[in-house]
Amino acid sequence: MRRLYANKPDFETQFTRIVEDRRESDDSVERDVRDILERVRAGGDEALRDLTMRFDKHALTAELTSWRISADQTKAAYDFLEPEVKRALDLAAERIRAYHEGQKPEDRDYRDEKNVRLGARWSAVEAAGMYVPGGRAAYPSSLLMNAIPAKVAGVERLVVTTPTPHGEMNALMLAAAHICGVDEIWRVGGAQAVAALAYGTTRIKPVDVITGPGNAWVAEAKRQLFGVVGIDMVAGPSEILVIADEENDPDWIAADLLSQAEHDPDSQSILITDSAAYAAAVEDAVDVLLAQLSTRMTARESWENHGVVIVVEDLAAEAPALANRLAAEHVELAIADPEAMFAQIKHAGSVFLGRNTPEAVGDYVAGPNHVLPTGRRARFASGLSVLDFMKRTSFIELDEKSLKDIGPAAAALAEVEGLPAHARSVTVRL
Amino acid sequence: MRRLYANKPDFETQFTRIVEDRRESDDSVERDVRDILERVRAGGDEALRDLTMRFDKHALTAELTSWRISADQTKAAYDFLEPEVKRALDLAAERIRAYHEGQKPEDRDYRDEKNVRLGARWSAVEAAGMYVPGGRAAYPSSLLMNAIPAKVAGVERLVVTTPTPHGEMNALMLAAAHICGVDEIWRVGGAQAVAALAYGTTRIKPVDVITGPGNAWVAEAKRQLFGVVGIDMVAGPSEILVIADEENDPDWIAADLLSQAEHDPDSQSILITDSAAYAAAVEDAVDVLLAQLSTRMTARESWENHGVVIVVEDLAAEAPALANRLAAEHVELAIADPEAMFAQIKHAGSVFLGRNTPEAVGDYVAGPNHVLPTGRRARFASGLSVLDFMKRTSFIELDEKSLKDIGPAAAALAEVEGLPAHARSVTVRL
Repeated sequence: MRRLYANKPDFETQFTRIVEDRRESDDSVERDVRDILERVRAGGDEALRDLTMRFDKHALTAELTSWRISADQTKAAYDFLEPEVKRALDLAAERIRAYHEGQKPEDRDYRDEKNVRLGARWSAVEAAGMYVPGGRAAYPSSLLMNAIPAKVAGVERLVVTTPTPHGEMNALMLAAAHICGVDEIWRVGGAQAVAALAYGTTRIKPVDVITGPGNAWVAEAKRQLFGVVGIDMVAGPSEILVIADEENDPDWIAADLLSQAEHDPDSQSILITDSAAYAAAVEDAVDVLLAQLSTRMTARESWENHGVVIVVEDLAAEAPALANRLAAEHVELAIADPEAMFAQIKHAGSVFLGRNTPEAVGDYVAGPNHVLPTGRRARFASGLSVLDFMKRTSFIELDEKSLKDIGPAAAALAEVEGLPAHARSVTVRL
Repeated sequence: MRRLYANKPDFETQFTRIVEDRRESDDSVERDVRDILERVRAGGDEALRDLTMRFDKHALTAELTSWRISADQTKAAYDFLEPEVKRALDLAAERIRAYHEGQKPEDRDYRDEKNVRLGARWSAVEAAGMYVPGGRAAYPSSLLMNAIPAKVAGVERLVVTTPTPHGEMNALMLAAAHICGVDEIWRVGGAQAVAALAYGTTRIKPVDVITGPGNAWVAEAKRQLFGVVGIDMVAGPSEILVIADEENDPDWIAADLLSQAEHDPDSQSILITDSAAYAAAVEDAVDVLLAQLSTRMTARESWENHGVVIVVEDLAAEAPALANRLAAEHVELAIADPEAMFAQIKHAGSVFLGRNTPEAVGDYVAGPNHVLPTGRRARFASGLSVLDFMKRTSFIELDEKSLKDIGPAAAALAEVEGLPAHARSVTVRL
């Protein structure tokens, strides 16, 4: 953990280093992934079988159940949930659905003052694929956050691929898939699963959009397949920026900082406050809480290597500019009146307003999506939304009169661009 | 050109081949581009100087004018335009602006039934870069179509890079840049220009989003930099699908087909009609018009290699399903009542309704964007829009009571996901 003081002469240098720090690995998995994609493209289900045995030690046999998890299985997993967890997942799904319903875009269809009819019509993609990781990053909440926007968009066929190493399935994931109405679940993982979703195989029909988190191989596969299908934004390690004054209980803020740190050793937690004494109190509270966490190995590594505490003199005057340079995935404004500062925060994935809004409520039950831009991408990217599963078709309708009106200008521009058939397609109608 | 009959037994095989035909080259420019990006990242302006001399034979010297085209120069280029071209460009800009103004998204800010405040706020990216090619694909209309949505979005700094081979500038492009209010124009091209926009150099400050057409090197550079910056969709050769009955003048439809064919030898023009006699008449008209075009070399190569004429028995019954499988960039519905068929077209970049709406009006003056998804990407992608230059920040605000209400569910889910600090950040506040 580093403590920085905004009024020290070397602050700008140190802060710039934090802004520019890349916590994403440049794993050179590119060639491996390219090989895997090509193998699946050429070899289809046979290639999936070989790669799944090799990487997941799971045998895809003649039995369909070895390939696919059935609706009966997901229903059973849901029914088997503890009541408290079931209620929590149901509440989360309901609130996520309600929030995303409000994202559905409106069509346009109008005639302008020249009587040209113009518009745009939105429609859902036909099929969406979602990668669901095994292992540490396997969160049922992520399945909800990816699947529900797709279903709200109107996607007819929602396909999950997930590795089942040594044949083991994740019951929570299955329950979440049941809640979301996932249509197909295939027991394949890694870059090979992404390839199957994009290119299709005999068993797995191709999809149009692929979302969902994954390891470096999965991320690279999506990157390479961008254009063959639509993909969501590249995702790096999670991060939080907490802007807090000394009126906050240090234990609350320590928990917020560690809630990011426990995700991954490369996660980053940053506190900006206006009191060196308060900063020290939070640091102490972090140490106390760290000792209690079952995730302390990860959380400590993240906090020690990437944690930052910045002490400024005037939160209102200094914090927004620093926040905009960091363009963090999550920004908590743990201050009495967050509204004025929020108005100055231009770049952030999601903002949590006031002292009673820990970031974790946004991970699960608040409603907005928790798939958010990381690594300063909030400068140009947004959280996952219904729009990621829809596309827009524009349309134009002219009649004889409006073509006479604006057509000649089109023909003139086509001529100067050296495109005579373009010009001709207008003039021949005049 | 191939003629297909929908009632022939081999139609499905032949049509599938057309749907799956990839007209995009798999140029292995990947390693070259990777090298160039790395050179610019490490070497900055020095690397730009070397690469620009090598690829464009243009010397970037100590004189700023060798690097940058000034506002005076673009103004002069605009003033020097022929009156007809000036009027046409002004009309195009005005209509494009008006259409894109209607794309600006609305913010959300509401309290739900549990008194949780939720919302989303849109804001423009700070800086956008636009690649403007030299040579054949250098269209001032493309500059309008890329720059105006960025300005409508509210982008403060709009940067163009364009090669000036042997020092030569394209006056039309400069005039278009003047109309759009482009803020900076840098005389660099190729992958090196894209690298400069993404990473920044001493002279060229980095941008957040890069759009605009380019050759295979430029496209690959954008692909590799996706995630460092936002980019628009990968673009392949242009394509048009014309659905026309025999009531259309064959000369009109021939011109429409060739207006795509003249773009590029890899462009594709497809006609679906319900009369073999009419198909033959259009083919004859194409041959006649081809002989008259200054672009006949390109247009003929495209038409001969990629042109398709499909004769069906019943347009209304058969054309929409074929159109949806092709998911073409441009779809013309040259029929008496296009509305019913339009309702069945699910996948298309842009649709041109009725006999008086040649696609070329959409390229220039109608208003909707002409940067559209190609190569069947209309299944999942949309035309360029104001949204490509904006991003959304979600926000959440709870008070003590609403945290008590939904917080426990978040804590329960955090516990089953094995994230105790997440749970703690909620429970410590309860």
